[in-house]
Amino acid sequence: MAQTLEQRVYNFSAGPAGLPLPVLERAREEFLVYPGAGASVMEISHRSKAFAAIHEKAKANIKALLNIPDNYKILFLQGGATLQFSMLAQNFLKGTGKSADYIITGSWGNKALNEAKKEGETRVVWNGKDDNYVRVPKQDELDLDANAAYCHFTSNETIQGVEFQTEPDTGNVPLMCDSSSDFLARPIDITKYALLYAGAQKNIGPAGVAVAILRDDMLERVPEGQPSLMDYKLMSEKDSLYNTPPCFAIYIISLTTDWIINDIGGLAKMEALNREKAKVLYDTIDGSGGYYRGHAQADSRSIMNVTWRLGSEDLEKAFVAEAEANGLATLKGHRSVGGIRASIYNAMTLEGVQALSEFMKAFQQKNG
Amino acid sequence: MAQTLEQRVYNFSAGPAGLPLPVLERAREEFLVYPGAGASVMEISHRSKAFAAIHEKAKANIKALLNIPDNYKILFLQGGATLQFSMLAQNFLKGTGKSADYIITGSWGNKALNEAKKEGETRVVWNGKDDNYVRVPKQDELDLDANAAYCHFTSNETIQGVEFQTEPDTGNVPLMCDSSSDFLARPIDITKYALLYAGAQKNIGPAGVAVAILRDDMLERVPEGQPSLMDYKLMSEKDSLYNTPPCFAIYIISLTTDWIINDIGGLAKMEALNREKAKVLYDTIDGSGGYYRGHAQADSRSIMNVTWRLGSEDLEKAFVAEAEANGLATLKGHRSVGGIRASIYNAMTLEGVQALSEFMKAFQQKNG
Repeated sequence: MAQTLEQRVYNFSAGPAGLPLPVLERAREEFLVYPGAGASVMEISHRSKAFAAIHEKAKANIKALLNIPDNYKILFLQGGATLQFSMLAQNFLKGTGKSADYIITGSWGNKALNEAKKEGETRVVWNGKDDNYVRVPKQDELDLDANAAYCHFTSNETIQGVEFQTEPDTGNVPLMCDSSSDFLARPIDITKYALLYAGAQKNIGPAGVAVAILRDDMLERVPEGQPSLMDYKLMSEKDSLYNTPPCFAIYIISLTTDWIINDIGGLAKMEALNREKAKVLYDTIDGSGGYYRGHAQADSRSIMNVTWRLGSEDLEKAFVAEAEANGLATLKGHRSVGGIRASIYNAMTLEGVQALSEFMKAFQQKNG
Repeated sequence: MAQTLEQRVYNFSAGPAGLPLPVLERAREEFLVYPGAGASVMEISHRSKAFAAIHEKAKANIKALLNIPDNYKILFLQGGATLQFSMLAQNFLKGTGKSADYIITGSWGNKALNEAKKEGETRVVWNGKDDNYVRVPKQDELDLDANAAYCHFTSNETIQGVEFQTEPDTGNVPLMCDSSSDFLARPIDITKYALLYAGAQKNIGPAGVAVAILRDDMLERVPEGQPSLMDYKLMSEKDSLYNTPPCFAIYIISLTTDWIINDIGGLAKMEALNREKAKVLYDTIDGSGGYYRGHAQADSRSIMNVTWRLGSEDLEKAFVAEAEANGLATLKGHRSVGGIRASIYNAMTLEGVQALSEFMKAFQQKNG
């Protein structure tokens, strides 16, 4: 067992990403027989008592962590954030005669926008493209439509490493958010949102499930005739169980949220730890005398994805390869932007980040 | 460990259903560190070498088992069979000006039909409803449209326990099949199909992934403007990796298909074992002198879901409860039809079926 654990690397993958070790150990312990079920969680009916308890636990944990009022539904859906891009536009834009506002701060915002364009009119109310997505907009830069069907933003751009510090204020226009890469990384005021959704595979679980938190009044807007699995109203009425949900992924979410509550001590502590981790890396970048150049502007820096460049692509390649050899895995930036990206989601330990910082200093000393 | 294994019941769940024990044991062994990856399969990028090998293995195994020619794509999609109901109708019916033929042999066929109705014109070319879904149609009973966009059938109806012994002949009309509950249970001639799909959670993996096997020429029919995740053409071009797929579920499929190939010895042997298992139960029913009354007609009996009634609902309740107490789990029929249902998918052992047969005989002797 010890040998097995020693084989685990510090995993800076952008997603699917590392999970807390206690979560993996608990899941392994119960892998053949979930207590009381006589079978693996993968083998039991989604309508069994055992799974119902797992499902309730996952919902209750998310509700408690984000302090979600009773007028919100918590759904577990398939297809990741990408299917949500289409689903929210089909449910809340298509056929409304209105236009939807999109704030574009990076790659994922563009993807959300492109799916929405297939369903109806859209307006880009701010676009970070011209300055290469290094920051989020200030409130007074937003060209908002007071009559928009909704306004959509991406709270954290995984690829560029820019993150909103606080939500844009859209007044009475329903606010919708792709929070895939910073979901449950810090407390937020959920009452500002009409819809917040997140693919699980970065911060809270394995790939194959997305969480959607939806305000009740939005359900009245869902038009008839949606495909059943693309219908927020039906999925809400059926409590995510219209068909078989991704049970095992929901089970892992129940365990990771348990871990945030019990091992970490809640979202305020989770945020403090995440900020401490991010600070270690940003301090290393800022203290490198320009050897490492951070991508995001200081006021828009992500506490989840830290992105930076070195002096040349050759140096970046050497950095990634040497880091890998030292047990610091998957630091290569996304193919669309290059450079280095350290994804330090909830499950990344402070030790892992410190090890990376030490490596960065040693690499600079050797190659600087 | 032995204690753990003893806690495992004979699991007759209709889905999510039992998985082969060697598959679970292998997955548990690799749960914290997948060999060479330094992390769990749940924690590695879907674009990593380790996952690429798992993905290729899962595809290659399915291709080998079903002898699939090169002009078919093998896709791993989310949303289960239910999203396929919509996706195939959006890709191949909507906007064609044609109608689609549906053969209805039970509950799932109706669900597929209802989703298609939202997208275009449909025709029911045979409906088993009037005789309570006890059989599949004969070829000459099908009222086929030679100009249909496609013809859809459900190879095995999980709830009613009726199964096609051979595919309907639809001539030049593309044949499409929901094979969720008998996928990889027996050899089939895939070249008869334009599209065959299956939710994994009955025969080959956990909930959260569906396999779709699609003939290349169908891709030309996919209209522009589909939501990306509902677009067979895009998902084919991207080899199921347009966004993050349900990696862990695909990994389990790679292991279950390994198991069929290496432990069972291929699909012909898998079918022989499945037929042997089914025969044990049907013989018990037929030999009960009418105490147990099978639902399906003999020529339409499923080798995956064996369904029967007892003399009264009280007796059925007692049967299910006593069976449960004897380690024979989840034998209650679906709430929509009642009675008893024993789902005996690939992973169910002959020993499990024999234990159920012995229990049936003892129960009859005591209560008959």
